[in-house]
Amino acid sequence: MTVPRVGVTAGDPGGVGPEVAVKALSRFGGLPPASYVLFAPAGVVEAEERRLGVRLGARPWDPVREPERGIFLADLPAPVRPPETGRVAAANGEISFRAFEAAVAGARDGRLDAVVTAPISKAAWAAAGLPFLGHTDYLARLYPGAVMTFWSDRLKVALLSHHRPLLDAVTAVRKDALLGLFRTLHAALGRLPGGPYRLLAAGLNPHAGEDGYLGREEIDEVRPAVEAAAAEGIPVSGPFPPDTVFLKARRERDAVVVALYHDQGLIAFKLEAFATGVNATLGLPFIRTSPDHGTAFDIAGRGLADPGSMGEAVRLAAAFSATGS
Amino acid sequence: MTVPRVGVTAGDPGGVGPEVAVKALSRFGGLPPASYVLFAPAGVVEAEERRLGVRLGARPWDPVREPERGIFLADLPAPVRPPETGRVAAANGEISFRAFEAAVAGARDGRLDAVVTAPISKAAWAAAGLPFLGHTDYLARLYPGAVMTFWSDRLKVALLSHHRPLLDAVTAVRKDALLGLFRTLHAALGRLPGGPYRLLAAGLNPHAGEDGYLGREEIDEVRPAVEAAAAEGIPVSGPFPPDTVFLKARRERDAVVVALYHDQGLIAFKLEAFATGVNATLGLPFIRTSPDHGTAFDIAGRGLADPGSMGEAVRLAAAFSATGS
Repeated sequence: MTVPRVGVTAGDPGGVGPEVAVKALSRFGGLPPASYVLFAPAGVVEAEERRLGVRLGARPWDPVREPERGIFLADLPAPVRPPETGRVAAANGEISFRAFEAAVAGARDGRLDAVVTAPISKAAWAAAGLPFLGHTDYLARLYPGAVMTFWSDRLKVALLSHHRPLLDAVTAVRKDALLGLFRTLHAALGRLPGGPYRLLAAGLNPHAGEDGYLGREEIDEVRPAVEAAAAEGIPVSGPFPPDTVFLKARRERDAVVVALYHDQGLIAFKLEAFATGVNATLGLPFIRTSPDHGTAFDIAGRGLADPGSMGEAVRLAAAFSATGS
Repeated sequence: MTVPRVGVTAGDPGGVGPEVAVKALSRFGGLPPASYVLFAPAGVVEAEERRLGVRLGARPWDPVREPERGIFLADLPAPVRPPETGRVAAANGEISFRAFEAAVAGARDGRLDAVVTAPISKAAWAAAGLPFLGHTDYLARLYPGAVMTFWSDRLKVALLSHHRPLLDAVTAVRKDALLGLFRTLHAALGRLPGGPYRLLAAGLNPHAGEDGYLGREEIDEVRPAVEAAAAEGIPVSGPFPPDTVFLKARRERDAVVVALYHDQGLIAFKLEAFATGVNATLGLPFIRTSPDHGTAFDIAGRGLADPGSMGEAVRLAAAFSATGS
């Protein structure tokens, strides 16, 4: 088998992205065997190496060469002036977008198996006049079936909906949408190592509705979707009470909780896996992972950023790619 | 100062209530100094003592005597037949309701400072023809301002709403209701030891609405309530993103998170404090606590029930009473 090819973007050059990317890749010896390709202007990477006192020894990436184990650099054009650190800047937004766009293009062309994205600034993308709200929005336009999932040793969570007001998210809990999500997850999880995985569907209401007494969505929407998916052979059960389903899943390494709205899943996930959790977008033709923190402008450029979550994102992308995506 | 007077109900005699109550009180030496009054038929208590091989040595409770340290029994009439164990029975519902009613009456008459309630079966209350859905419903009818709170060393949570469908709970997030809750909590927490406490208000939407982009309830309802309460001198801040407010509160012993709906608070609380958490109803003229588990009919009568949460409920009731309620 050929080595997995993992693209890594350095994110907004004014935030902690380049720092956590360089720190994570500098621990190359502890990462799964892979061809790691860093997407960033060479000047940004060199400045970060100097600041941290590390050397990645990255070789220029040649997308048409047979991939080999090592660290490679996909250099990108950059402004003459060095990036501004610690704040929103249009030029930084432009840099982080071009790096992301190039990495995704490489994955779409079949030259990368996975893309790991360091944090960008949505405000910097807006300042640069870009028409995308962020990484996830960009990917969702290319792949409308994309699903946000969250991975840690202790807990795995998939979201039915992501960034929408709670009232909208509640009214979007519909049988057809859930059945589509179960199918997408089942197909995507089936290609990942560590499985087979089982889906645990959360309910929407307190105590999962208590037989309709505390809400009917479980009876009218969630249970019919679970039953239809199970009839297709998808290993899914529920709906379970939202305040105990995560306790149930925490004990079982093959369980993935299907949460019905953003905070139902993320309240639990952040308590269980803060600073070590990884965000993975499934339902794409390649793997995409990212750390669960932002640009952290307040500590950017000071060498203080914890690369734990970024390192886990790189590790997970390589591990998931190793069995083919 | 006189010793606190703490009523303890034994709950449904077919569940684990009598077992956890007797086990918790049998560790009397480790409990705060208080007069503990167990409300249950003498036959139920004696049967449980025999089964567990312990002796509480409870003396008959005389409500008009000066309270003294020790364990007392408020005997109640009971059916001639012994209770059925491990299932819903109308006779058991009648017993657990009479014990609860008597304990609450004692607290309302000023003869008890606190009431600790072991779990009852709502189905057994219904089978007995009682018009109350459970403990909380009974108390809410007497005291409409009652507030459900959840206590553990790691996390403290108060709920704006409790047992209602999520869609209803979302539409009930209103400035006036929140301001009333902040006032009730501030007054009630001010009488408890371990303070002063600070309130952290959760937002409703992902990222607390992200400046209105992901929902407007934070701007229209939550923030105005926080500002009005703060202007009255109530220590409250927020709204904070729901998926990080519990991380923030977990680091701070004086923080109480105000959750806007049942699962927002209880997903976090159960992950942090499963089997040791205590439910406390505030905004009553007395303290009421209870363990965070149910009747557990499946293990009733077998001596297997963990009295940890019940013990913490008894300890917290005594501690809260010691400074006056």
